[in-house]
Amino acid sequence: MQNKPTILISNDDGITALGIRTLVEVAKQFGNVVVVAPDSPQSAQGHSITIEDPIRIHSSDIFGPDVKAYECTGTPVDCIKLAKNVVLKDQKIDLCLSGINHGSNASTNVIYSGTMSAAMEACMEGIPAIGFSLLDFSADADFSAAKTFVEQIVANALSNGLGETLLLNVNIPKLPESEIKGIKICRQAKGYWSEDFQKGTDPMGRDYYWLTGKYVYQDEGEDSDIWALENGYVSIVPVMYDLTDHAALSSLDHFSNL
Amino acid sequence: MQNKPTILISNDDGITALGIRTLVEVAKQFGNVVVVAPDSPQSAQGHSITIEDPIRIHSSDIFGPDVKAYECTGTPVDCIKLAKNVVLKDQKIDLCLSGINHGSNASTNVIYSGTMSAAMEACMEGIPAIGFSLLDFSADADFSAAKTFVEQIVANALSNGLGETLLLNVNIPKLPESEIKGIKICRQAKGYWSEDFQKGTDPMGRDYYWLTGKYVYQDEGEDSDIWALENGYVSIVPVMYDLTDHAALSSLDHFSNL
Repeated sequence: MQNKPTILISNDDGITALGIRTLVEVAKQFGNVVVVAPDSPQSAQGHSITIEDPIRIHSSDIFGPDVKAYECTGTPVDCIKLAKNVVLKDQKIDLCLSGINHGSNASTNVIYSGTMSAAMEACMEGIPAIGFSLLDFSADADFSAAKTFVEQIVANALSNGLGETLLLNVNIPKLPESEIKGIKICRQAKGYWSEDFQKGTDPMGRDYYWLTGKYVYQDEGEDSDIWALENGYVSIVPVMYDLTDHAALSSLDHFSNL
Repeated sequence: MQNKPTILISNDDGITALGIRTLVEVAKQFGNVVVVAPDSPQSAQGHSITIEDPIRIHSSDIFGPDVKAYECTGTPVDCIKLAKNVVLKDQKIDLCLSGINHGSNASTNVIYSGTMSAAMEACMEGIPAIGFSLLDFSADADFSAAKTFVEQIVANALSNGLGETLLLNVNIPKLPESEIKGIKICRQAKGYWSEDFQKGTDPMGRDYYWLTGKYVYQDEGEDSDIWALENGYVSIVPVMYDLTDHAALSSLDHFSNL
């Protein structure tokens, strides 16, 4: 056991989701698995953390006797912080896996994603991390093809590392395994959500708005994650948390000369 | 009135915070101000959005008769989406301002910040945006020096634009105005939060954990925002939402050859 890597797993769909169950099944083949995941769905939580309230963790036997698992009342990022500082305090975490998310985290969805924020938090603490997402929002999505690619990618990450980055955003098309053409290394596609709030009236007669909308792609390039997914490939985008727009630094001298 | 720019304002400390009141006072001098801000504090919400629940907005006269203001039950990012798609639907928004945050959003704090996420959401929808933060967490922080610099920066942004970027992260040191040396254009400093959860027992006898910790800087460079702030300057970092680690793209071929 002592040579097996320690693999930390979290997600944003909650500890009972089918996606995290699939990820745990894969990771068990490769290492000692510890799960710290939200006790309820936390989609679109972004990189939020809980600072105004206490959080709680409870151990769970949901993944059987071989997997130490905890459900947490906090956000996906809280789960990673608790895992590193309480559950696995002073222990080395070799790899953090997040997901498999039910739904796409390609293009700018990475910014809203709780799945990717959990992985990013691990990476900010120096732990190599991979977020996985399947392009199927349904709770009973078919993860069988995804599982094959997650297996390949985790095996390769453990053997060969993550190149010169610490964080990968992996998205898997909603296709049968035989129709998936392979894996492409990509950049994040340009795009944004075009919203169309649904206005309604609640049983107390009060107006409400409910967020809806469609994603607008603004990218024609064949090197983007969206292109890869639309053309039958699994996309891998290396992700960083330096948000500096370095190319724009020299265009702002008019502010420093005020 | 018709030539005045439309300035959208939000924050993450909530509509009653002193910081947003200061920002509104500044912005009123330059344009028609519309406020859509959370009805309660939303610090550290990151880029979270509300998708599982409806959100509500109510008009507010908190800023007097000249300022259209709305308080919103959602997150900072929800506020921007509602402003663009409901409150100011089909109207041009010339500039989005967020803050003034009570507390630093320098270095990697940008990733956790509701203030910066609101500004980033505006920028993702094509609206030039600036997030302002004062390095003072207290509710009754002194914003008088900050106000002077916010005035200069907003005036300059409206006259001369944001250079080749669409989003600025402005942090202001907690110093009297006479001790602030000027404004520096910077990159995001490297650093991370080192957590130390406070463990306790609640009145029902249940264990809880409460996030605490200190920020660890990993950056010696004199071109970082932390260096600028520690040396008495206002820092401005141009920010982008393309998280691709472009430099690492070519180091990942071992994944695409699986």
